Amino acid sequence: MQIGLIGLGRMGGNMARRLARHEIPVAGFSLDRADAAAFAAEPRIEVHDQLDDLIASLPTPRIIWLMVPAGAATEANITALAGKLAKGDLVIDGGNAFYRDSQRRAALLGGRGIGFLDAGVSGGVWGLEEGYGLMVGGARADFERALPLFRALAPAPDRGWVYCGPAGAGHYAKMVHNGIEYGLMQAYAEGFALLAARKDLELPIGPIAEAWRHGTVIRSWLLDLTAGVLRDPAMLDRVGARIADSGEGRWTAREAIDLGIPAPVISAALMARFASQGADDFGARLLALVRNAFGGHPLPPADDAARGALKAPQPGP
Amino acid sequence: MQIGLIGLGRMGGNMARRLARHEIPVAGFSLDRADAAAFAAEPRIEVHDQLDDLIASLPTPRIIWLMVPAGAATEANITALAGKLAKGDLVIDGGNAFYRDSQRRAALLGGRGIGFLDAGVSGGVWGLEEGYGLMVGGARADFERALPLFRALAPAPDRGWVYCGPAGAGHYAKMVHNGIEYGLMQAYAEGFALLAARKDLELPIGPIAEAWRHGTVIRSWLLDLTAGVLRDPAMLDRVGARIADSGEGRWTAREAIDLGIPAPVISAALMARFASQGADDFGARLLALVRNAFGGHPLPPADDAARGALKAPQPGP
Repeated sequence: MQIGLIGLGRMGGNMARRLARHEIPVAGFSLDRADAAAFAAEPRIEVHDQLDDLIASLPTPRIIWLMVPAGAATEANITALAGKLAKGDLVIDGGNAFYRDSQRRAALLGGRGIGFLDAGVSGGVWGLEEGYGLMVGGARADFERALPLFRALAPAPDRGWVYCGPAGAGHYAKMVHNGIEYGLMQAYAEGFALLAARKDLELPIGPIAEAWRHGTVIRSWLLDLTAGVLRDPAMLDRVGARIADSGEGRWTAREAIDLGIPAPVISAALMARFASQGADDFGARLLALVRNAFGGHPLPPADDAARGALKAPQPGP
Repeated sequence: MQIGLIGLGRMGGNMARRLARHEIPVAGFSLDRADAAAFAAEPRIEVHDQLDDLIASLPTPRIIWLMVPAGAATEANITALAGKLAKGDLVIDGGNAFYRDSQRRAALLGGRGIGFLDAGVSGGVWGLEEGYGLMVGGARADFERALPLFRALAPAPDRGWVYCGPAGAGHYAKMVHNGIEYGLMQAYAEGFALLAARKDLELPIGPIAEAWRHGTVIRSWLLDLTAGVLRDPAMLDRVGARIADSGEGRWTAREAIDLGIPAPVISAALMARFASQGADDFGARLLALVRNAFGGHPLPPADDAARGALKAPQPGP
């Protein structure tokens, strides 16, 4: 077993290292000279800066794992590989592609006799040490062929990977996984905000987060992370109150709409992120003006800096 | 160290056993003869059926732990203990009381020189083996006095318990803990519903739940439980589609309103439970009639059994 790995960023780079630690040689591809330097001393990892060189370096039939941002970068790489790979080769997309794109790409490559697996990968920067969770879609035979890779990347050979079904099923499962993550993160955030707001009770947020990690019903890996952050609650004062969203939350909420299946918590978590990005401001300004128009209620100052003061938690009754 | 424990039900009974295993003798109180029989053979646990006997059996100053349902049962016991205990005794309420009730009870008992701790306990029926998470409010000195109990009940002596602040702080933290739990559970439920609805992808829900337990960002104790349930997905056909709510979700959502702190996910999870209980039916029927009135849209049959068919997941576009 030997693979090509396109993309040696935060995720791909650590995955290359984990594969190499499991005795699987990795031919990496990166246009970033810093990557080549970073991996120069690592055993069983070589870095190419030409796609043709990467392809030529691999024994046939080849397995090439894509670990690049979803969207244009993935599309460009799939298109290039479709023109350069041979019948019997296998492409695995480990990025967070939209599952319908993956179904389309599976058909495109399949038309040329090239296999395709969509493999959702979870674990973030901790995956190198703790292993990755893997959700894989595509032809069962292609999955079996690539299984040694999944067994090496997972936390243990016998767990943490799952064959999800035909093309698209892996990225569908990963999309839903990330939608769930939105809901979980928002639930914790709301809870800690309620603890912080009750200043009269002097609740020690950090120690409570730490205690909740042990024995409670809400213990989780995300709570472990949250407790780590809250060891220094002053950090909260040093970041902006905005949460980015990276696509999968939107897809999950849209899927709920397409299927007619209620997903109020996942949707609310997504909307909370939009609000944090300022997307609620237009509506809030409009309502301030309307309240002023019908009730003479005073208008808040336009200065956004005043917003914090207006929204500061009030002590309970 | 020796304690009285009022209430030997699902939670209290196992807590008595865990304390006894940690060499702390427990004088239990229960009016249920079955409890006395169940604990007859257990070392270091005796069961009384008279409150006066329980009190007389304890060395002074006494510690009495209440583990009875929040509300009337807790109130009746606190009132009785206020009349029977002596100055220097300590009452610990381990139930899920509303934190403002706990503040009131702390004042009532404090007026008679009796200490009071409000101790939120998490862990459910698994606590006997895995230990309980404990969030404690009250006077710091009373907390220190009862610390050997918390160290015995927690998963390990040095973790899983936390002093949260003055009277009410422990039950406030437990209330928020349970509110978070509502959001977490609903997020998972929505995600698995989206997996189940995509019948064309043939997603294996049970194995996906099992795989998600390892290496993913959404791994948690609640996911462990969920994966256990989904080992036999046919179980879903054998339960009603209704989720009870037991008070703490409502209190958390109300607290968010009182404080003016947004809690959209916790609130949405609570509303989803109300909807599952049928509390949405009035509004749904009203809207069906209004749609019929303005657009001639057909009325759904009154038979609730037809509802499932109307709401069955549609395949995606």
